[in-house]
Amino acid sequence: MPDSNALETLIQSLRCLPGVGVKSAQRMAFHLLQHNRTGAQTLAQALSRAAEYVRHCERCHTFAEHALCATCLDVRRDTSKLCVVETPADQSAVERTGAYKGLYFVLMGKLSPLDGIGPKDIGLKKLFDRALDGTVQEVILATNFTAEGEATAHVIGEGLKSRGLQLTRLARGVPVGSELEYVDLGTIAHALVDRR
Amino acid sequence: MPDSNALETLIQSLRCLPGVGVKSAQRMAFHLLQHNRTGAQTLAQALSRAAEYVRHCERCHTFAEHALCATCLDVRRDTSKLCVVETPADQSAVERTGAYKGLYFVLMGKLSPLDGIGPKDIGLKKLFDRALDGTVQEVILATNFTAEGEATAHVIGEGLKSRGLQLTRLARGVPVGSELEYVDLGTIAHALVDRR
Repeated sequence: MPDSNALETLIQSLRCLPGVGVKSAQRMAFHLLQHNRTGAQTLAQALSRAAEYVRHCERCHTFAEHALCATCLDVRRDTSKLCVVETPADQSAVERTGAYKGLYFVLMGKLSPLDGIGPKDIGLKKLFDRALDGTVQEVILATNFTAEGEATAHVIGEGLKSRGLQLTRLARGVPVGSELEYVDLGTIAHALVDRR
Repeated sequence: MPDSNALETLIQSLRCLPGVGVKSAQRMAFHLLQHNRTGAQTLAQALSRAAEYVRHCERCHTFAEHALCATCLDVRRDTSKLCVVETPADQSAVERTGAYKGLYFVLMGKLSPLDGIGPKDIGLKKLFDRALDGTVQEVILATNFTAEGEATAHVIGEGLKSRGLQLTRLARGVPVGSELEYVDLGTIAHALVDRR
């Protein structure tokens, strides 16, 4: 290896990024040092700033720089609806549809006993308090349609049922633009049961 | 998106890493902020330090923190041999074999006219000066066996021939441990021609 402690340290540090192994880390380090030192400095500042200032919205738990996020502060949102999603990326996907004007609760994860992630780690207590604060009338469970996402939705549903709230789940069915031939059978079966 | 400028900036900045698109950048940012803020701070420092201190060895052009790299300073190396490689990663691969005790010249790239990378960008003038400095007797062309690597080796060979230097190229042949059935035909053809 080139004799450079700073380089070695950089390669090691890059491995804290998810999905980055030794080879990728090396490639990234060489690329930045050879072609984009300004980018490296900008990234360093962005990392440091984000690690220092980004925290969680006190109401919906998503990433925010202030006590409450912009969505929670937006008075035009429909406060009677609460959409529960796993991650900020999922929230962003729902938001981009433009079809939802209510508020969110971001779990920042999903129940995953095998990984040691329990109800406490995804803030279920906080979610229940939020859902039962009197303003919310409908809780939309928009966790992923994976085994863990379904289990998470189930647990939330159990915790909130018979509390006078309307509990809904995103509709399962055939994705828009897809051909039946290539859609998996479980999805088609659900689409048949939920036909309208 | 979560309302956080620091987060948005981080996601944008992560895209300066090679092979990282919007989705990966988002995943990396969320992972660091949710699970590894210490890692983010460490990476920030490593990036900043490397961008500031890592430079090129004045003799062999690889990454180094001082005027000369450890390999060039090592008095036990055979100064009569100069191995020309494309990248520090290639140098590292040759070094790990333990079969080479000479010195290196690292091009930090390869000739690639389509990408606008010419002889100047890979320091060919510097390489020629180095190869003809009187101490070097053999130049081993260890650029990759790709079209661009071969072209680079050819150009270097042309520039150095009839200057009293021995010019060699890494042997082409069947990789150790491989079965003929699965080796590409070009490689087998070369191995036949260069049989010994």
